[in-house]
Amino acid sequence: MNGQAGTHPTPIAGVRLAVAQSNTRYKNRNDLTLIEIAAGGTVHCLFTRNKFCAAPVLLAKEHASKATARYLIINAGNANAGTGSAGILAAREVCAAVATSAGCRTEEVLPFSTGIIGQPMNTAGLNAVIPELVSGLTIDGWDAAAAAIMTTDTRVKIRSVTVSNPDIPISVTGIAKGSGMIKPDMATLLAYVATNATIAPTALRRMAELATARSFNRITVDGDTSTNDAFALIASGAARMPTIESEDHPLFAKVLDAIVRVSQGLAQDVIRDGEGATKFVTVKVSGGATESDCAKVAYAVAESPLVKTALFASDANWGRILAAVGRAGIDTMSIGDISITIGDYPIVIAGEPVANYEESRVAELMRQTDIDIAIVIGLGLATTEVWTCDLSYDYVRINGEYRS
Amino acid sequence: MNGQAGTHPTPIAGVRLAVAQSNTRYKNRNDLTLIEIAAGGTVHCLFTRNKFCAAPVLLAKEHASKATARYLIINAGNANAGTGSAGILAAREVCAAVATSAGCRTEEVLPFSTGIIGQPMNTAGLNAVIPELVSGLTIDGWDAAAAAIMTTDTRVKIRSVTVSNPDIPISVTGIAKGSGMIKPDMATLLAYVATNATIAPTALRRMAELATARSFNRITVDGDTSTNDAFALIASGAARMPTIESEDHPLFAKVLDAIVRVSQGLAQDVIRDGEGATKFVTVKVSGGATESDCAKVAYAVAESPLVKTALFASDANWGRILAAVGRAGIDTMSIGDISITIGDYPIVIAGEPVANYEESRVAELMRQTDIDIAIVIGLGLATTEVWTCDLSYDYVRINGEYRS
Repeated sequence: MNGQAGTHPTPIAGVRLAVAQSNTRYKNRNDLTLIEIAAGGTVHCLFTRNKFCAAPVLLAKEHASKATARYLIINAGNANAGTGSAGILAAREVCAAVATSAGCRTEEVLPFSTGIIGQPMNTAGLNAVIPELVSGLTIDGWDAAAAAIMTTDTRVKIRSVTVSNPDIPISVTGIAKGSGMIKPDMATLLAYVATNATIAPTALRRMAELATARSFNRITVDGDTSTNDAFALIASGAARMPTIESEDHPLFAKVLDAIVRVSQGLAQDVIRDGEGATKFVTVKVSGGATESDCAKVAYAVAESPLVKTALFASDANWGRILAAVGRAGIDTMSIGDISITIGDYPIVIAGEPVANYEESRVAELMRQTDIDIAIVIGLGLATTEVWTCDLSYDYVRINGEYRS
Repeated sequence: MNGQAGTHPTPIAGVRLAVAQSNTRYKNRNDLTLIEIAAGGTVHCLFTRNKFCAAPVLLAKEHASKATARYLIINAGNANAGTGSAGILAAREVCAAVATSAGCRTEEVLPFSTGIIGQPMNTAGLNAVIPELVSGLTIDGWDAAAAAIMTTDTRVKIRSVTVSNPDIPISVTGIAKGSGMIKPDMATLLAYVATNATIAPTALRRMAELATARSFNRITVDGDTSTNDAFALIASGAARMPTIESEDHPLFAKVLDAIVRVSQGLAQDVIRDGEGATKFVTVKVSGGATESDCAKVAYAVAESPLVKTALFASDANWGRILAAVGRAGIDTMSIGDISITIGDYPIVIAGEPVANYEESRVAELMRQTDIDIAIVIGLGLATTEVWTCDLSYDYVRINGEYRS
């Protein structure tokens, strides 16, 4: 169902990208990215619900409320979060520099930042290379942009899906960054997904919400929600098709499906590249009274340090899964209704351990790179899936060493 | 304020203990403990709120509702949790064996288990040594019991406090075990605290609730709540004093204070012995509208893997603290009201990083073994403290290797 992990992303007509090296935190690598959306396109952004949004998030929200974005400017290395009023001034200054070089209004520029929290921004370094960025914009810039937005990521995350459609070839291409501090809430890390379809603002907003609910809002590395999470969905309109105004449009479902496939692919790429991750784990919970109950149970399991260290050790310690389900805060659950399956092997059925349990078979399943944990809670018909990774020595090493 | 870490625990008249080696999971160590309370004593137990209580927890609740406990039987190595109906039968069988040897009714025996979840109990091994336990009961058994209840603990946890009181010398002695799967909820890990004071059941229950609220219910190693947590408060009545019937009794506050000191000491010992812990961290949150809001913020910080790995690395990465506060779920918080202090060094005041911030001074504070993090959220007058530890390579190693 997911988009191909693309080394050859499909360019999106009406969207151009450029990268540059600001030398503000990293040396010898590109760390500043500019994305241009053609006039007439639409953009919808979802942002973190962390109460302490970073300065660029606050300013991007303000700008998005005043104008349709023409440019997205993204710096990696400094989150410009916890930086007080100086941080807002810095973000505004960078947007103004883009506006000057590109010949647009400041509020048509949305700023995004990712990196260390609580460090002053070096705007001089960023502003110096903005003219170079504007002149370097190209439709083929996706690969370079996917690399330039990375921080602790070890791999670029880029996906493309093309919808087969007789009249109008519609493509969706997206990039994301993220590896730690990953539990997006209404949005994510940083992700930019673009299509050449023509989509009205209200329909685009609905697609952004539906797509994140099934992708970036269903992943966790460490339960930590960033101050800077943002998801931008761009519809350039370059396909010059009848505008998708609402869910009733014949192409709404088809285009949404492509956006979901790209978003799920990127979200799963983030988990596979989770800090220190050695396993990709799908926690599927069914039988909930609501999807929200299913998500509570799935996150309790996916974020349990004891479950995650057992996954790292390939240890079939399913008692830790049971204990995590039990503390998920679902008061109506009863152990007699609980079933747990690892891979295709049922371990607990209706609250009782299976007769003739063969630990060696489960241990074999736990040694795989991809592990499926299915939990039935017996309260209703709702279901959901959360993707996560294990907790390894390298998670501790990476996060102990990140600033040194 | 805390009780002394005691190598010489004060015996409690009316309470006798014994230990034995059942050879069921561990070899060459005592793993079965019996505690006897003299006739006329009172006991109040608080148990885990994990929805999937272990079999011994279910049976102990049933027995406690029918009779006043005379014996507590505790095995280490197997939690008898996730064991279905066979687990209940096993716990009942062990209680019956104690009752037969000790000459009491089965419902006067409360069972406790700690160890691996999801393994069948070997009751034959336990039952075989119960007569030896009963004949070995001694008032001086606290040290041996503190050792026999351990699982992944590396140190015994034992505390005593004696209340200076002209007429009746009152002592409180307690033991606890716990190192991982530590986020007690209404109770804790396993802890047994006894006094020779004479306390009526309702007053004892009140003391148990007040003492855990200020000790075991304010600690976290990994956010994982066990299926087997239990806290038993025992008043033997051997002091033959006027019974403490309610909070109006002149000694209620004094005895409670001693119980709190022993309980806080034990709870802090659990954190200092947290799996892989190299730091002891106090997170103090003040300025909340309610104590529960303060606790939410404190736990968000204390359980953040990114904060915990920064503590392990002695990295003054205070942005991670700010981000964790921001996702604690307190909607009325505003960054302009937030202050953060590490040790005696203020880092953020009213939402702004301090001018002339000296990272070297904070780094020095972060290198200490004991670290204090104080957070003000500016919404009211409530306050609370949570104790936690860092997240180290050894946490991952211990929990990867625990069963192998």
